[in-house]
Amino acid sequence: MNKSRTEMLSASDLEAALRHIGETRYHHLHPFQLLLQEGRLSRAQVQAWALNRYYYQSNIPVKDSIILARLGSVELRREWRQRILDHDGSETERGGIEKWIALTDGVGLDRDYVMSGKGILAGTRFAVDAYVHFVRDRTLLEAIASSLTELFSPNVIGVRNKGMLAHYDFISQETLAYFDKRPVQAKRDSDFALNYCLEHADTREKQDAVMDALRFKCQVLWAQLDALHHAYVDPALTPPDAWRPGEAETGREAA
Amino acid sequence: MNKSRTEMLSASDLEAALRHIGETRYHHLHPFQLLLQEGRLSRAQVQAWALNRYYYQSNIPVKDSIILARLGSVELRREWRQRILDHDGSETERGGIEKWIALTDGVGLDRDYVMSGKGILAGTRFAVDAYVHFVRDRTLLEAIASSLTELFSPNVIGVRNKGMLAHYDFISQETLAYFDKRPVQAKRDSDFALNYCLEHADTREKQDAVMDALRFKCQVLWAQLDALHHAYVDPALTPPDAWRPGEAETGREAA
Repeated sequence: MNKSRTEMLSASDLEAALRHIGETRYHHLHPFQLLLQEGRLSRAQVQAWALNRYYYQSNIPVKDSIILARLGSVELRREWRQRILDHDGSETERGGIEKWIALTDGVGLDRDYVMSGKGILAGTRFAVDAYVHFVRDRTLLEAIASSLTELFSPNVIGVRNKGMLAHYDFISQETLAYFDKRPVQAKRDSDFALNYCLEHADTREKQDAVMDALRFKCQVLWAQLDALHHAYVDPALTPPDAWRPGEAETGREAA
Repeated sequence: MNKSRTEMLSASDLEAALRHIGETRYHHLHPFQLLLQEGRLSRAQVQAWALNRYYYQSNIPVKDSIILARLGSVELRREWRQRILDHDGSETERGGIEKWIALTDGVGLDRDYVMSGKGILAGTRFAVDAYVHFVRDRTLLEAIASSLTELFSPNVIGVRNKGMLAHYDFISQETLAYFDKRPVQAKRDSDFALNYCLEHADTREKQDAVMDALRFKCQVLWAQLDALHHAYVDPALTPPDAWRPGEAETGREAA
């Protein structure tokens, strides 16, 4: 990265710069993520993570639909629509959102409560909504670039699943079924998005915009874990109206 | 508040419900606010507060311009435009944004850095942007109702100013000039907005929407202090790319 700040980067230098952003800013480095995969969270803290991340998961096909509407060609839409199929599923195959519900079921949260969005942190809602607005309001190139965090997810999923299965007796392979297909899907999707960005970022300004879009998306993920860490690692800091441990547990009365 | 959940509230009951939301959810209750006004923050933590809140302040005329565009009558626009004058000022009178810069000057932050928005927390950006999007995307009634946190600000301003002047030797009356006129302006503006909401919320559904809009706005303020508290009360948790103590100090090299 010794290029001047105005010179166009080669494709391989841009790719290296993007991977460097992931190495330094992706949420695999977040303290909450480390606590989660090292088995150092309580069941209630894992519930808070599953509950809040459902809001993120359930908005993925929303943001992908916005991108779909902006792609402008049959070929690109055919490629991108697979993401929506993956998350929304079909009558014969469970989608990612349904599998995330299996995860919140597995950790003992009431399904209707989870799907209602009640009790999620404002920090979760603002970060996820910022992502949806970003893909609507920015250039198509930036919208596509914001998906590039998937370059870094397969690795993290492996580490997190292994850690969670080893450390939490309330977590089973079935609970984590969401993640079974994600590494393969994420590799396919991020290969496509990366090639699109390398090809279409044909000025330094566009290359900078691609890098900023990836930084933004890292912040979307990071801010969600910040909110969880702040609210649930020190219980005194749980905001008004947010879910509290014991609430919405399956088979119990809601608090 | 013993009414059923579908029955229309009287104007006085709705007002009481709104004031109850403020008593339980406004950011005067936030731990960071208490630390700030009790003199228990370091200069760097006060700098972080001033820096991040500049982003909020500088977006107030943006959100008010969006509302202005939606009001639909000369009379309402004449009323609402005063808010924009208050924040943007004129050639002869400093506006609120300029006075906030006097505050960031006063605590020793570089003006260009502050105005660039660099180094603010993602949590700040997402919360403030959520507010701007809310007044664009929701009904006009909800947009107006989201300003009702000003019902509660005069009190808080008094307590905070008194505490800050007493406890921090780097804070002067001039540093806090932003707040001089705010109680009078906030009273005028919130009287208008409250009357508008009491008059136009003519179904229980609209009354619920008004209450939800105020809850949302309380979350916008609360989430900003959450982000500050999380990032700067425990320095180990400062996110990547966020301002760090010592950076952008007036008269020093930026880190």
